[in-house]
Amino acid sequence: MSDAHNSSATGGTDTITVSVDAMGGDQGPQAVVDGCELSLAKNPELKILLHGDEAVLAPLLDRKPALGGRLTLRHSPDTVKMDDKPAQVMRHGRQTSMWNALGAQREGAAQATVSCGNTGALMAVSMLQLRKLPGVHRPAIACLWPSRGKTGFNTMLDVGADVRADEESLLQYAMMGAAYYRNAFDVARPRVGLLNVGTEEHKGRAEIKEAALLIAQAAEIGQFEFVGFVEGGDIPSERVDVIVTDGFTGNVALKTGEGTARLISELLRRELTATPWAKIAGLLALGPMRRAKKRTDPSRVNGGVFLGLNGTVVKSHGSADATGVSSAIKLAFTLARSGFQDRMSDRLSAVMDSVAGRQEAAAANAGDTE
Amino acid sequence: MSDAHNSSATGGTDTITVSVDAMGGDQGPQAVVDGCELSLAKNPELKILLHGDEAVLAPLLDRKPALGGRLTLRHSPDTVKMDDKPAQVMRHGRQTSMWNALGAQREGAAQATVSCGNTGALMAVSMLQLRKLPGVHRPAIACLWPSRGKTGFNTMLDVGADVRADEESLLQYAMMGAAYYRNAFDVARPRVGLLNVGTEEHKGRAEIKEAALLIAQAAEIGQFEFVGFVEGGDIPSERVDVIVTDGFTGNVALKTGEGTARLISELLRRELTATPWAKIAGLLALGPMRRAKKRTDPSRVNGGVFLGLNGTVVKSHGSADATGVSSAIKLAFTLARSGFQDRMSDRLSAVMDSVAGRQEAAAANAGDTE
Repeated sequence: MSDAHNSSATGGTDTITVSVDAMGGDQGPQAVVDGCELSLAKNPELKILLHGDEAVLAPLLDRKPALGGRLTLRHSPDTVKMDDKPAQVMRHGRQTSMWNALGAQREGAAQATVSCGNTGALMAVSMLQLRKLPGVHRPAIACLWPSRGKTGFNTMLDVGADVRADEESLLQYAMMGAAYYRNAFDVARPRVGLLNVGTEEHKGRAEIKEAALLIAQAAEIGQFEFVGFVEGGDIPSERVDVIVTDGFTGNVALKTGEGTARLISELLRRELTATPWAKIAGLLALGPMRRAKKRTDPSRVNGGVFLGLNGTVVKSHGSADATGVSSAIKLAFTLARSGFQDRMSDRLSAVMDSVAGRQEAAAANAGDTE
Repeated sequence: MSDAHNSSATGGTDTITVSVDAMGGDQGPQAVVDGCELSLAKNPELKILLHGDEAVLAPLLDRKPALGGRLTLRHSPDTVKMDDKPAQVMRHGRQTSMWNALGAQREGAAQATVSCGNTGALMAVSMLQLRKLPGVHRPAIACLWPSRGKTGFNTMLDVGADVRADEESLLQYAMMGAAYYRNAFDVARPRVGLLNVGTEEHKGRAEIKEAALLIAQAAEIGQFEFVGFVEGGDIPSERVDVIVTDGFTGNVALKTGEGTARLISELLRRELTATPWAKIAGLLALGPMRRAKKRTDPSRVNGGVFLGLNGTVVKSHGSADATGVSSAIKLAFTLARSGFQDRMSDRLSAVMDSVAGRQEAAAANAGDTE
């Protein structure tokens, strides 16, 4: 049974309020307001609390009177900048739209938060305001990746919350990634793979081999299928849904994939404008090429989800346009409505208890044979 | 001054002999023999020693009598298979074409070796036969990456020889990568970047921050420019030539880039055959698209170079066709002719002495102040 079909405390047909940080994105508040409009039009059960500078936002909202009933503006005088250090924001950021967006969620006025702002600051303020789920070592950031699979997307985590991960953190990423994928894409038993430099059992680093054992044992409680090791080339594969890795490797892989797509797109554009004949061909091929590109469009795969906190936080890409912001809000809405956090937390506790139990039993056995 | 213009023991206008392992590639010995033919036609100073099963190779060579004077066949009864374990090959591989190809280089009958076979076995046998350069902790594998820069290629290392690298290994990769790039592409002062999850100084893992200091200090002896941290999206960038990373991250990045290119190519092909109109557009756009694709064609960027051994070894892609094999042989030929190994070894020793000197001085200073 898929979790996505269960009802829950916040589930069913009730309204979901998403808290949106309007400031801090590269495209400015206009893109965020347009994104809110798109998202409200598509999702009748959605309401939005919009946080930011009233002097900037009120004129933008005045032009969209139809939003009135479902979008509420909350004033914040300050904005977190892209180069602000997280520690600085923790100390002096209480007047920022990011801080207040998360504060509204903590107080229960919203069920999820979306921000286009500074990732490091957003994670730091999220941890401070929402706190980690019990037993979670480190929250993770999960990204979406265009794939050959049925849903068109795979997810990979961690992509940058933490630069190291031991075997227990990798196990938690597997549990959280499976819960996220199940509820975002309505897939009952997501397939989980562990990123490595080869698919043979003897390959890779020690903590990865250890994590493979822990993840295999957790598959039943976590309601996922463990497909074993996967390689970089398998990230868009149809044989896996959730790719587990540490935040350093995940961040490099994500940016390498984006960079490769950008390079190919540039080379194609250059060749298809090089000669008059090529331009004609390019013009005719425009439609099919756009459709192909749409599959890998960053604004469609927009939304890094923070997992392992008491609540759902979605980091929209800093350069997201209105479509991108709307995708991120939709993702936050879908996850908040599914109420998956509580179920994920219960399963995480069960798995970590079982790991602790096995470690104690192993220690006791070692004692017996001494 | 570029090393590529210096003459050396093996340099100048003398003939260079490359030892080629004809067996073990996915495309079979025919592709290797065709690749040898292509390469000999283009490089008049090249000779080849071809290793493999005489019963298979002799009939292929009989059809190319023109090669007679410049290609010599040496019989090896056995072949290393793609799934053979390195340890197994080390114990029982003395009759294989891979072993004998490297043996010919060790004996001085050839100045470089090329193989399409099993990477792990090739590294193990290379280390056994050629030995590491003095002071080198671990040899590295350097790959080529299509780039926006003048030469059209960047290089990244390590991409899989070793799954961990401490700061001294990363320093050695920077020195070896710069020497390789200078001599392969005739660039006097290659720009070296260190792969990280951000370009700010405070980001990343401890050993990477430490390596950044060591690499910056080695730039003068190593005759490179250190551009600091680079991210996954910078791998094809024009602001860097040599990307330094550990073998785990490098291998994941390489395969992620290849996988992304494959996905985009598939999506484009699908859209450009979806409707009759799209097919016409696809047909017209075929030429420009092929030219764009050629820039990222794996057979043009073929050749993983093993660095840090007493001699040049090039690992050709397992699925390389004749063009790919020819590129790999050309790369081995260029590097062997440049005689860069001795100069690289001298500079490595100088840098490692300087690191050791600083460590001793630091220890002595610490002693003084106690």
